[in-house]
Amino acid sequence: MQTLTVSLDERSYPIHIGENLLDRADLLLPLVRSRQVCIITNTTVAPLYLQRVLDLLAPCAPDHLILPDGEQHKTLDTVSQIYDHLLARNYSRSSVLVALGGGVIGDMVGFAAATYQRGVRFIQIPTTLLAQVDSSVGGKTGVNRPLGKNMVGAFYQPQAVLIDVNTLDTLPPRELRAGLAEVIKYGVINNREFYDWLHQALPALLARDRQALIHAIKVSCEEKAAIVAADETEGGVRAILNLGHTFGHAIETAMGYGEWLHGEAVATGMVMAADLSQRMGLLGADDAAAIRQLLERAELPVVPPAIAPDRFLALMAKDKKAEQGAIKFILLEAIGKAVFNRSAPADALSATLQAGSRLAQA
Amino acid sequence: MQTLTVSLDERSYPIHIGENLLDRADLLLPLVRSRQVCIITNTTVAPLYLQRVLDLLAPCAPDHLILPDGEQHKTLDTVSQIYDHLLARNYSRSSVLVALGGGVIGDMVGFAAATYQRGVRFIQIPTTLLAQVDSSVGGKTGVNRPLGKNMVGAFYQPQAVLIDVNTLDTLPPRELRAGLAEVIKYGVINNREFYDWLHQALPALLARDRQALIHAIKVSCEEKAAIVAADETEGGVRAILNLGHTFGHAIETAMGYGEWLHGEAVATGMVMAADLSQRMGLLGADDAAAIRQLLERAELPVVPPAIAPDRFLALMAKDKKAEQGAIKFILLEAIGKAVFNRSAPADALSATLQAGSRLAQA
Repeated sequence: MQTLTVSLDERSYPIHIGENLLDRADLLLPLVRSRQVCIITNTTVAPLYLQRVLDLLAPCAPDHLILPDGEQHKTLDTVSQIYDHLLARNYSRSSVLVALGGGVIGDMVGFAAATYQRGVRFIQIPTTLLAQVDSSVGGKTGVNRPLGKNMVGAFYQPQAVLIDVNTLDTLPPRELRAGLAEVIKYGVINNREFYDWLHQALPALLARDRQALIHAIKVSCEEKAAIVAADETEGGVRAILNLGHTFGHAIETAMGYGEWLHGEAVATGMVMAADLSQRMGLLGADDAAAIRQLLERAELPVVPPAIAPDRFLALMAKDKKAEQGAIKFILLEAIGKAVFNRSAPADALSATLQAGSRLAQA
Repeated sequence: MQTLTVSLDERSYPIHIGENLLDRADLLLPLVRSRQVCIITNTTVAPLYLQRVLDLLAPCAPDHLILPDGEQHKTLDTVSQIYDHLLARNYSRSSVLVALGGGVIGDMVGFAAATYQRGVRFIQIPTTLLAQVDSSVGGKTGVNRPLGKNMVGAFYQPQAVLIDVNTLDTLPPRELRAGLAEVIKYGVINNREFYDWLHQALPALLARDRQALIHAIKVSCEEKAAIVAADETEGGVRAILNLGHTFGHAIETAMGYGEWLHGEAVATGMVMAADLSQRMGLLGADDAAAIRQLLERAELPVVPPAIAPDRFLALMAKDKKAEQGAIKFILLEAIGKAVFNRSAPADALSATLQAGSRLAQA
């Protein structure tokens, strides 16, 4: 087992990564002993792992709640189900929530923990690659609104994150690949060496080699933890984690939540951000092509769906990173070197969107 | 004008108190210049003060949103109206929300500010005495659930609080008295000198003498600010601010939100807490009687509504201050000396509830 620490003063917490961690009562029990504990999961994950976590926590007689699965359920209505479950059972401020599932579960349980009685403890047990390398690290919690993704939420840190790579055995291939999009992102934005390792390790990762997965998750979490520690509430450098997300969120919103997986939208978004960077003269054509090829090798989509450029622009103007209507981009100067808070000339942006639109219709 | 500071490191903020502050563009404009600004108020306050605040902020072209009035609207549905208003107009993370109204508006706008895009700035312009002395200070924001009051929320501090006592001219008498309940609370829990001043100043306060009101608001805010600075997230001493609230919240929940004003429920709750303190041998009979009499002189209710003691107990066990079903009380050892985190013997608590129930039926 490997353990990293996300350093945030009194809100610091450990991330444990390894095999068979769902058998390690010694990791989890000290965090919950003598408290009211509710394991919150979804209809997909519950049949696979709920009983094991219930058994693990048996000494503290845990309760559980099973929510519907899917991004379309990442809403205030679903979070209200959590609130009312806890209220009906008199959960106090010293309760602990355990988020068992993917990013949607983690985001909602984290937001419920941030806001139930103005804040209770929570623990993340992410069971998808995407959640393991992204949403379980860094304290972003929240839900969607019909007008925008992740538009309601809080920065709120868990007590601990427990990543058992064995849970990836049951992950559908499409979701594994979507998680790899975020893994590749860390290499592209900030770590050329990791990018090169991914280039050669991709077949092992796609074959779910556990040691390769542990390394990929560990480096991804280290990258994210370092950036989050430097900028917890995204005043500055944390923005680079959003490479591909401005385009990607627009795709997700346009298609309706759940049609494109988040990682798929981010993959296409990264290709578009690289295209824009290249058109602006920031990024070389070779690097832009290499990023696209690596994502293609991971069987991720690299062409946006058919969205009219005007609508694409309007959706991006609603992004959280937009500033009074001016869209801010994360762009690339090289593989391993992202820059943030950049405006894009209208002609370059238009060319990227037009090119995407043409490819979509091809 | 008097200015206090709530000292919370980088989250510190000023409270300005005085007459005609709604004419003081110099106070407000520097906080909002060059940002997207939305003034959020309700149907009762809008006809009285919205235009003045719009005029005050005219240089930054403020937007506004008018919500329904009343505690029964302090819900996630109403907060969602705020989110969607902001999203439809592309409000960014650097926006500023202005809460213009009473405690319900302040709590909801504060919660919306805490959670819209994971946090935007907000300014409080409280227009009720209750909001001026209580809910606008200390950063508690939130909404009700059917199973409990203020059960969903966040600790989130405003950029500034602007208290114009002139706005109390239009406050209905019943709401003025409800605000005085919280003012009296500060004397009772922590400031005997202030309690004695209130004893003699009560007629002036009820007659809305502005200098008396300014003094009462200033001392109340000082008391609350000092306690909040010592314990922002209510790990300890901040709990004394909840004197009367465990009983009071049960009354509000039992009666349905909006039937009893919060201050009225707290007034009766303080009388019940004093009664319990007396039965437990902590508080002298003279002090308990004096508290009751001062609240009666303020024309506040001092007898609970008819709620069966069993139901009263069950409602209190759901309170945020309850700990795994064990109800924790704020009790009194003297006027000016509250103690917190106390359990009550079942017989004393039962006697207090039975006495209340008998009086309710008398």
